[in-house]
Amino acid sequence: MKAYQSLEKLNDRIGNLAHLAALASWDEAVMMPKGGGEARAKAMGEIAALTSEWVGSQEMGALVTNAKAEWSELTDWQRANVLMSERRWRQATAVSQNLVRQITEQSAICQQAWREYRHANNWKDFEVHLTKTVQLAREEAACRAAATGKGPYEALVDMHQADMDLATIDRLFSELKNGLPEILEKALAKQEARHFCPLGRKVPRIEQMPVMHDFMTTLGFNFDHGRLDESHHPFCGGVPDDVRLTVRYNEDHFFGGVMAIMHETGHAIYEQNLPRRWRRQPVGEAVGMAVHESQSLFMEMQVGRSPEFIGFVTPLLQKKLGRESDPKNYWTPQNLLTEAVRVEKSFIRTEADELTYPFHVILRYEIERDLIAGRLEVKDLPEVWNEKMKLYLGLSTTGNDKNGCMQDVHWPWGAFGYFPHYTIGALLAAQLAESLKGQLEHVHHSWSKGDLSTTVKWLEKYVWSHGGLLSIHDLVKSATGEELSTKAFFRHVKKRYLEF
Amino acid sequence: MKAYQSLEKLNDRIGNLAHLAALASWDEAVMMPKGGGEARAKAMGEIAALTSEWVGSQEMGALVTNAKAEWSELTDWQRANVLMSERRWRQATAVSQNLVRQITEQSAICQQAWREYRHANNWKDFEVHLTKTVQLAREEAACRAAATGKGPYEALVDMHQADMDLATIDRLFSELKNGLPEILEKALAKQEARHFCPLGRKVPRIEQMPVMHDFMTTLGFNFDHGRLDESHHPFCGGVPDDVRLTVRYNEDHFFGGVMAIMHETGHAIYEQNLPRRWRRQPVGEAVGMAVHESQSLFMEMQVGRSPEFIGFVTPLLQKKLGRESDPKNYWTPQNLLTEAVRVEKSFIRTEADELTYPFHVILRYEIERDLIAGRLEVKDLPEVWNEKMKLYLGLSTTGNDKNGCMQDVHWPWGAFGYFPHYTIGALLAAQLAESLKGQLEHVHHSWSKGDLSTTVKWLEKYVWSHGGLLSIHDLVKSATGEELSTKAFFRHVKKRYLEF
Repeated sequence: MKAYQSLEKLNDRIGNLAHLAALASWDEAVMMPKGGGEARAKAMGEIAALTSEWVGSQEMGALVTNAKAEWSELTDWQRANVLMSERRWRQATAVSQNLVRQITEQSAICQQAWREYRHANNWKDFEVHLTKTVQLAREEAACRAAATGKGPYEALVDMHQADMDLATIDRLFSELKNGLPEILEKALAKQEARHFCPLGRKVPRIEQMPVMHDFMTTLGFNFDHGRLDESHHPFCGGVPDDVRLTVRYNEDHFFGGVMAIMHETGHAIYEQNLPRRWRRQPVGEAVGMAVHESQSLFMEMQVGRSPEFIGFVTPLLQKKLGRESDPKNYWTPQNLLTEAVRVEKSFIRTEADELTYPFHVILRYEIERDLIAGRLEVKDLPEVWNEKMKLYLGLSTTGNDKNGCMQDVHWPWGAFGYFPHYTIGALLAAQLAESLKGQLEHVHHSWSKGDLSTTVKWLEKYVWSHGGLLSIHDLVKSATGEELSTKAFFRHVKKRYLEF
Repeated sequence: MKAYQSLEKLNDRIGNLAHLAALASWDEAVMMPKGGGEARAKAMGEIAALTSEWVGSQEMGALVTNAKAEWSELTDWQRANVLMSERRWRQATAVSQNLVRQITEQSAICQQAWREYRHANNWKDFEVHLTKTVQLAREEAACRAAATGKGPYEALVDMHQADMDLATIDRLFSELKNGLPEILEKALAKQEARHFCPLGRKVPRIEQMPVMHDFMTTLGFNFDHGRLDESHHPFCGGVPDDVRLTVRYNEDHFFGGVMAIMHETGHAIYEQNLPRRWRRQPVGEAVGMAVHESQSLFMEMQVGRSPEFIGFVTPLLQKKLGRESDPKNYWTPQNLLTEAVRVEKSFIRTEADELTYPFHVILRYEIERDLIAGRLEVKDLPEVWNEKMKLYLGLSTTGNDKNGCMQDVHWPWGAFGYFPHYTIGALLAAQLAESLKGQLEHVHHSWSKGDLSTTVKWLEKYVWSHGGLLSIHDLVKSATGEELSTKAFFRHVKKRYLEF
């Protein structure tokens, strides 16, 4: 087991670099004065280069090979750790240093262009930048395909969530495309008949802060191992022993902020409860982006927007904020629940609700898949986007590329194959919630008392404690007894949006 | 110049590591939740190991040698940069990796013991830990002596401030020991005759914050390249492009806090105004710890506690804090000035005033010099400390080791040869201030209007802009035309404490 032990030691050092990278990136978003950006970029570039050097080193390759020769002496966890180290090593060695450098530089340039041209709704000047980014992404995809035996786009999808193949995604998304439109239309019709008073009045930042802290504590966030701060875009950063959550205090949309904090806390408690024994080892990390998103959506969509939890939340908010925050008494359980499950066909993915979100994702999935395959060119993006938006959500983005194909940072950033996992996460969250309720009857009744202890224990047992030991497919099977599917999601949305 | 350019490149990478180390250490003191400590310690250990590996690498040694072969092509700055890279390389290679590891581990253990046993005033149990630390420091000193040709203790002193030899320190300190006691006694007598009302009433943290910001701005702190936060011990961290200052808001001693922020801002603006061209190069760093301290003491002692600046400060404080903070109207220029220049023989170095501070330093200097030389053993520390405190300040520390030889973190931390620079900095600050006023008559009158622009320009010209190009001796000569001496300091304290 000498090689295996050396492998753990090298992984541990790489984990230390990841700690520093996470801290530098959190600090940049939350604390850093603007003049610190240039020096910070250099430092972050250094740590990224060093990390990829170590992860893809000959030493790492040799340690993996030699650790495999010790296979019979290794435990299941150790074996999985070897395989995941190998996966990481392959990812690092699949693409030449030269291409990595080009992609990194182009990513910075294209994101900068995106910020400028999106703001000005200027597609023409942005197009040339994105074209270059897509060319590089195609090169990257070809390298990764060669290294993995997967298809080019599939190889990119696999980067963000291991073992996620296009056949599965196509099956799931085609079921959604078939079944969801009817539910969406019915939900909109039912909603129209429902009485709703928009939540009025600003809630000052200073009043929101302690409420956010309380909700995090309710969900089990451990403030000995993390903190909450403010940033322009909320995110969950840091490392498992020190999770850095951020929120944006929108004084006009306090309730939306509460849901956002439920979402981010879902990510955070997954990180905090990853197996301690395996810190800084690949097998100790979250199993992938789709599973990560399932945990945030579990807390936001399954718990947070449930009638039970809204019932718990309402008196708390009323008490915390005082009557003066709600002069017209809009903050009743019924009105808050109506707000929590409101549906609307809209342009912006990040503001989309549970029913329309999958269409935003499927649209992007189909476009980026065809972009990488060369079946679609960047110049055609505005038109294709517009057609698909009309098809899926009945909205035209003609002349509105700012809120159309220019709306997300993912492509300028160079991240292709990322989007589908948002919706796979939503499906998985629904499956997990259904199983939890099936296994522990009435568990969701405890949510109405703000008691999530049983829920959290169940998630820890079936999801968090495994780190990366189980694949997403094994995980869903062990937790629910079934394959990954759309069934639970359909049952969930039908119940929530049609049966009230 | 190929070797020289490669040398700059390697230094640049090392500078990136230093950026991350500075950030991790600032975050630990200011932001980190307590449960994050273990993972943070590992990450900081990693970056420290990596830094010493790179700084002391064969590659670095070869680059220095080869850059020296390009001497005739190099500018003065580049030559100095080569020599300072060589100095750093020698420091890193002088001590074996094994000894470094022992020292690092013992430092952590001894600091932990110090926190526990100092609190309990338990010398006996602390002694064994400090003995081990001193043994290792002696070994380190022997290695550094062998590598530099200096004496063992002198080699440690040189680590913190290049070109500072014991002959100079002995000369300066012996002048202080001869001349200062009489001034101190006279100052105490004069002070007794002076009317003083202790500054009453708490000033809440929230009211202090904007005042601190204002003073930092007055001194020229650039908030685009730095920030102010709170920590248990105030410090100046970060990197020149992003200086992280901290303060401790003591509600009972607001005025002391204002002086502390002047001090730390003195450090900060030195860092912020180091030459931009030489970022992440040894020659672009501050010239050493004594010069650094001269800049903080310039702002605190020469500017901050001057009658001119107190005259500027008083109405500001009165206005900012409102009359209710000063019901008895104690915050008059005269009373604040009396507070600013109060003298008291006391046990604690960090709380000492301008006149007694040198004795605290000389006492430590003499003890640590003899400890490293083996002329003194750790077991004798309480007694020697007590004798010297009685001799210099007339105070006995018998049975009070907590406030005697256990009071500072420096020795537990493993830092010997650090203390003398505090007082050298005080002497240099006085020399610089005297020269400034001699060269630009009446410049200090502008301080009474809160205008430090001319002062700051002068410091930038003579100190900050040189980075590490000039040695401390060349720097003092170019700024003042004289050698480093006690003369200006004596003139300054006589004027301040005896002639009013």
